[in-house]
This record gives sequence, structure tokens and C-alpha cells, in this order.
Amino acid sequence: MTYCLGIKTHQGLVMASDSRTNAGTDLVNICRKMFHFVQPGERVLTLMTSGNLSISQSVVTLLRKQWDEGKGLAVAETLYDAARVCGQMMRYVADLDRAALERDDFKFNTHLILGGQIHGQTHDLYLIYPQGNPICSTEDSPFLQIGEVKYGRPILDRGIRYEQTSLADASKYAIISFDSTMRSNVTVGPPIDLMIYEKDNFEITRHRRFSEEDPALVDIRAQWERALRRAIEELPPIYSDHTDRQF
Amino acid sequence: MTYCLGIKTHQGLVMASDSRTNAGTDLVNICRKMFHFVQPGERVLTLMTSGNLSISQSVVTLLRKQWDEGKGLAVAETLYDAARVCGQMMRYVADLDRAALERDDFKFNTHLILGGQIHGQTHDLYLIYPQGNPICSTEDSPFLQIGEVKYGRPILDRGIRYEQTSLADASKYAIISFDSTMRSNVTVGPPIDLMIYEKDNFEITRHRRFSEEDPALVDIRAQWERALRRAIEELPPIYSDHTDRQF
Repeated sequence: MTYCLGIKTHQGLVMASDSRTNAGTDLVNICRKMFHFVQPGERVLTLMTSGNLSISQSVVTLLRKQWDEGKGLAVAETLYDAARVCGQMMRYVADLDRAALERDDFKFNTHLILGGQIHGQTHDLYLIYPQGNPICSTEDSPFLQIGEVKYGRPILDRGIRYEQTSLADASKYAIISFDSTMRSNVTVGPPIDLMIYEKDNFEITRHRRFSEEDPALVDIRAQWERALRRAIEELPPIYSDHTDRQF
Repeated sequence: MTYCLGIKTHQGLVMASDSRTNAGTDLVNICRKMFHFVQPGERVLTLMTSGNLSISQSVVTLLRKQWDEGKGLAVAETLYDAARVCGQMMRYVADLDRAALERDDFKFNTHLILGGQIHGQTHDLYLIYPQGNPICSTEDSPFLQIGEVKYGRPILDRGIRYEQTSLADASKYAIISFDSTMRSNVTVGPPIDLMIYEKDNFEITRHRRFSEEDPALVDIRAQWERALRRAIEELPPIYSDHTDRQF
């Protein structure tokens, strides 16, 4: 499985991906799922992938080849066009592989998240479906997820607001969302790649890879669990004492 | 969809269920999914159901008929036997309905959670699969869920400990787990039935139904969101300031 998350706020973007891949439970590997395409000062594009690793690797390899030739993502005029370039590449790889995969009951299930900014335009965030069609995040839906999306969602639903959430806080929400997911699903695992993009910077502002034993990650997890326990204790009681039978 | 949760701690049981049923998005109803079978002083059994409503209603109707005749759950010697009685009833209803359902591509997907205590034994909690076979909660896995289980799980993974968690706190965790689930999946909805059983009481200690506008629920939700926001703010920063490029 995989978990990738993109958050868009008024200040910029936070993107994060796990690194665990598995083909069955006895073939587990580490594989990076976040890829940067940067022309400093002109465009920053970050792509994250979920689903069948062979498909997503083909998509990224071919997008990188185009990029190196000054085509595709290198010349897309808008982020919408860039999302369409990714979608076209998904359809191209589908033409190569889909029939052979489905003949053996494998799904063509790759999803992409594309985030970034092209000079002269606002920063933005897209999700691209296996069929190649894109959807965009909005101010009302300021985050997009692919892969194992459910465990890590409640904390985002409660916390992320396009206008109010700072990038500093959004990156904390992202880490907590990943920690919750990794705890409940062993097929999502570290290292976690975390990328922060401040709008109008046109370079990757920060990129950090958290290993399982990263002291910062261990600290955050311990502190978060203490805070949750305290928050539960401070909630008003659901029932008051042993003699309360009116409940 | 449905969400039902059972928690077993050293002090007793907390069980909770939502009340939303839907057949498609344009046929949404309220339906209780928690059922009590009580012989005061002798046995307390609480059953919760998920999946196809017609199947689960048949199972409960027929279990109630047996109970009223002094059979089935009324005379099961152990909670394991009671779980087996439920499983046998699932298989009986499967014999009645499964072929007809599957002919039209409906799944025979009912799951049950059974919790309670029979005099002379410890309190316990079972999940019964659609095939009729049961599994039991343990001290290491002190909660069981059926239906839409993912959104509400992280808070339980972080908080519930068989030996340490009081029933008062477990009931708060249950409410938060339900609130997280309802927020992320509109097919899980109020009223929420919450049942608390203190071990060795042999009667339902407390049972409360929370409507959507229940002031206690509204309060808990608001206070919880404030606490989470504060907890996020108090976490150490993922990056320190704008000049920190070592990240």
C-alpha cells in the first residue's frame, strides 16, 4: 500500500509520501514515491504516486525523459496543463500494459498527486486518476490523498483550513496524519518524504526525509500521544459517577 | 454504511453503534443497530450489527424469538457459546437468503459484535463474521469494530489499553471515534447508541442515545477540536524559521 498527501494553504504547499512497497506480505521494499521537477525561478513541480509500482515507475521515467528533452512538464503553460501531461502519460502506459495486467487479474490502479507552481500563476494541487483525468484541490477541500487515505483523514478534516493554517502547522498535521496511518496499516511505512513549498519561491523550500528512528518523529509521536490522552481526560465526562442512572 | 465499536477493559465494556442505513444515496433511514438481551443478575448480552439490514434484522428477530422461548442466547453456558448461537443463526439466514441475494449481486455481508457477561464468568467481546465463525477480543486487542472501521481507529490505537483505560475514558474515546467517522463518511450518522457495562453488575449500567444536536455531543466535539489545535501548536516545529535551509 501507499499513503501520499498534498495540502494547499494560502501560504503554499506541503506534500508527503511514505516509502513502503509490497507485493504480498513477504516481499516488502523501500521505494521513494516523491519526484521533483524544478527549473529554479520558473517552475516547481512535485509528483507523488500510488498503486502498482511498475506502472508508476514507467510514468515517472517517461515524464523525466520528456523533461530532460525540454518537453512535457518542462513546457506546460499552466499547472492544469501539467496535470494533463501526467494524465496523457498514464494513458500511454495504460496502452502499453493494461491488457496484460488485467489478463492476470492485476488492476491498473495508479493514482498521482501533482503540486507546484509555474511562474505567473498561483500554486496548486491536482489528483490524477488511473483513467488520466485530473481534479483540483479547492479552498473548501484544501488537501488531496491517494493510497491508504482513511486512517490519516480525521485529523486533517478537523485541522486544515486554507486561509488559517500556516505551512508550519500544516507540516505538523501531515506528520501526525502519516503517523496515524503507519500505526494502523503496516503496509504504509517510513521513510517519510516531506516537502514544503512556500508560494512564489520557485524552488523547493524544504525537503526532509524522516526515517523510522528519526528523533524528531519519535518525539512528535510521544508528545502527540500525551497530548491526546490529556485532551481525553479534560473532556467533560460522558457519565458523572456510579450513582448516575439517568444517563 | 455502519459503524459499531466494542471496547473491553479491565472494568467492563463500552459498546456503541450509529443509526444510519442507506440503500443508495437517495434512500437514507434511521435504524437502531444495538440490541440487548438481559436476565438481571444472570446474564447481559448486547448485540450490534452491520451490513445488509434485511439480513441483520432477520438474525436479530430469530435470536429474539429463541430468547423469548428460553432457548439460544437465554441458555448459552458461556459467551463463546453465545457467539456460536449468533453464528449458527447467521448460517441459518444464509441458507434462507444468500443464493437469492447473490443472484442479483448483493453481498451476504452482515457482521456482528456480541458483548456481555454470563454469571460465573468474565465479561467478554466477540466479533462474528458473515460465515458464522467468531473471534474474541484480547488484552492486546481490546477493541473490535465492524462497518466503516478506519476513520475511527487511530484514536483507539493510541488510547485504549486494557489494564489502564477506565470505563469513563473508554466512553470518551468511543464518542471521539464516532465523531471522527461521521465527519469523514456521511453514511455513518446519528443517533449514536452508547452502552456501558460495568463487569459483575449483570444489568446494563448505562445506556444513552446521542442525537445529532445533543448538547453533550456538540460540546465534546468543539472541545476536542480546540484541544487538537492546541496540541498541534504545542508540537515542536518541523522546521524552525525561514532561514533554516538545512532541513
